[in-house]
Amino acid sequence: MKPTTTFAPGPSQIYFTVKDHIRHAFREGVPSLSHRSKEFEKIFQHTTESLRELLNIPSNYFIFFPSSATEVWERAVQNLVSETSFHFVNGAFSQRFFETSKQSGKQATAHQVEAGQGFSNTDVPAGTELIAIIANETSTGVTTSNDFAAQVRTKNPDALIITDAVSAVPYQSIDFTLIDSCFFSVQKGFGLPAGLGVWLVNERCISKAEELRSKNKYIGTYHSIPSFLAMARKNQTPETPNMLAIYLLGKVAEDFLRRGIDTLRKETEYKSALIYQALENHIQLKPAVLEKNWRSKTVIVANTNTLTDKLNAHLQPHGLLPGDGYGAGKKNQLRFANFPAHSKEVYEKLADLIKDFE
Amino acid sequence: MKPTTTFAPGPSQIYFTVKDHIRHAFREGVPSLSHRSKEFEKIFQHTTESLRELLNIPSNYFIFFPSSATEVWERAVQNLVSETSFHFVNGAFSQRFFETSKQSGKQATAHQVEAGQGFSNTDVPAGTELIAIIANETSTGVTTSNDFAAQVRTKNPDALIITDAVSAVPYQSIDFTLIDSCFFSVQKGFGLPAGLGVWLVNERCISKAEELRSKNKYIGTYHSIPSFLAMARKNQTPETPNMLAIYLLGKVAEDFLRRGIDTLRKETEYKSALIYQALENHIQLKPAVLEKNWRSKTVIVANTNTLTDKLNAHLQPHGLLPGDGYGAGKKNQLRFANFPAHSKEVYEKLADLIKDFE
Repeated sequence: MKPTTTFAPGPSQIYFTVKDHIRHAFREGVPSLSHRSKEFEKIFQHTTESLRELLNIPSNYFIFFPSSATEVWERAVQNLVSETSFHFVNGAFSQRFFETSKQSGKQATAHQVEAGQGFSNTDVPAGTELIAIIANETSTGVTTSNDFAAQVRTKNPDALIITDAVSAVPYQSIDFTLIDSCFFSVQKGFGLPAGLGVWLVNERCISKAEELRSKNKYIGTYHSIPSFLAMARKNQTPETPNMLAIYLLGKVAEDFLRRGIDTLRKETEYKSALIYQALENHIQLKPAVLEKNWRSKTVIVANTNTLTDKLNAHLQPHGLLPGDGYGAGKKNQLRFANFPAHSKEVYEKLADLIKDFE
Repeated sequence: MKPTTTFAPGPSQIYFTVKDHIRHAFREGVPSLSHRSKEFEKIFQHTTESLRELLNIPSNYFIFFPSSATEVWERAVQNLVSETSFHFVNGAFSQRFFETSKQSGKQATAHQVEAGQGFSNTDVPAGTELIAIIANETSTGVTTSNDFAAQVRTKNPDALIITDAVSAVPYQSIDFTLIDSCFFSVQKGFGLPAGLGVWLVNERCISKAEELRSKNKYIGTYHSIPSFLAMARKNQTPETPNMLAIYLLGKVAEDFLRRGIDTLRKETEYKSALIYQALENHIQLKPAVLEKNWRSKTVIVANTNTLTDKLNAHLQPHGLLPGDGYGAGKKNQLRFANFPAHSKEVYEKLADLIKDFE
């Protein structure tokens, strides 16, 4: 039997409305529109306005469309760092942001904790220009709260703070007043095919990029903050973008708004509670993250140890395909994405199957 | 009546098989595949092998998937230029490649000719590292032949040559032995939704990028030639890419192979001959490119002067939507893309309507 639901954290399960939205897009000629046309500007505007409403993005933030969250690591470092960045690292993805900064010739330092751990130490070297926080480390299933960002902000009011929210949104409510920039991609919580990133920057980021440019620092060419901004003001993009993905993101954001963000969040919490409980009560399986406050609601990691293959074999005949563990966890962990595309029913089934697993 | 065929040069008309390929992709779960899975590696391999066969790409070339042709301007300059690049410029897109090099801090120079002109002067400053040729300037409808590349090659054997083939392929047969790199995007001749670039590089480009890296030059982070190469060897990409577009490109390349590249090329020539003849015989409209050898077969530009709106109004009720002129030509030119997605029948109708236009 072919798996009907994938719990891989991204590319993940596609949201159930996406197929219809694509059909509609083709009927309306969206893929053949000029990216400089009024029609595309309306699509761009609809998507950014829907995202703004859904995620409660303040009016001092601009919304850009890079091609991936990976691209944002590079662009953020180019546009927001002259010399120094500091990274809170607790897994593979926060580590790669850190490495991207070093690779770009910046003086990057990090506070690194073990896999499965969150952060409590908020110390940042004095004079740091950019501080990177990860709202949800997809590799380990550890979440970082707004409270942590608040403490970092209070101690470092002059630094810019950027939050990697790749697998956190739309569930996690990011407090944009505590940070300056945030980014994610569409193939996680939005249930879309991969191929688009979303980058949010406030006016402090814009000033910083302009300052670097005025000092003849390299900030990229077609995708710098100033070039994104100049086009975003016209509801356009610097290059011909993944227009279909921008269209679909707006449509799915509209679907989410119709269901209600509170409903989505409550469902996410209900579904995660089911699985964490099933794992805690299980005699052999366990949640990988011990500290409850650090447990991600959107990427749940189970320590499966020697039972990884057996649990997979138990779930797959029921059409449920867990995500592999990441990196060092590849053989002894499984990951369960908990996004809006994963229904309550499918999560109840998953929890029941975990309970029955011997 | 809604336009049924767009002649805009890109995003352009979608190839008629694309909708079915998307339906099939969803049925097979392609959008939810892991980009590190064996299944995706097979898709990557199928697409690169199909492209290799279709475009006759030699085995010393590697195929990478950046997010756009625009990205390649930036990456090519980062990876293939330490100090100097030289650009043959005859329109907006060759000009932007030139500007990208300057913006990236390189010593870029250019041989610039007027809009509507091609190149005859093959002089390049001694010691130039990278020479940029444009196979088809989309803004003006001027083509550059393999003969020109051959002359440039003979006079500059040590320089790397990169060809912008954005709106040239698959019609134009690029002689890859005369150049070192080539790039295009999928929303032109391949009739796909926008959001993917294709970058071909040979072993000389790889050596050059590695040399720059060994000298601690900045060559980009996740999308450098070495990082693309390391992943391409595994049929993978550095980041989560636009996987659906990579899948669709392979499927459409397969469709083109089934029709036969010779058939596609003959049809392109037949269709372009119809329109150029209709324009030449017209009392008021004229081909924008005077010199016949420079006339593009894939992007045909008409001087419409004061009749631009009137010709548009004449064609649109028949479901035919011309592309606007570009830049300075916006008000007094119209462009007609001639890609595989544009059928012979629709081109015959277009030619008849131009003949009847008064």
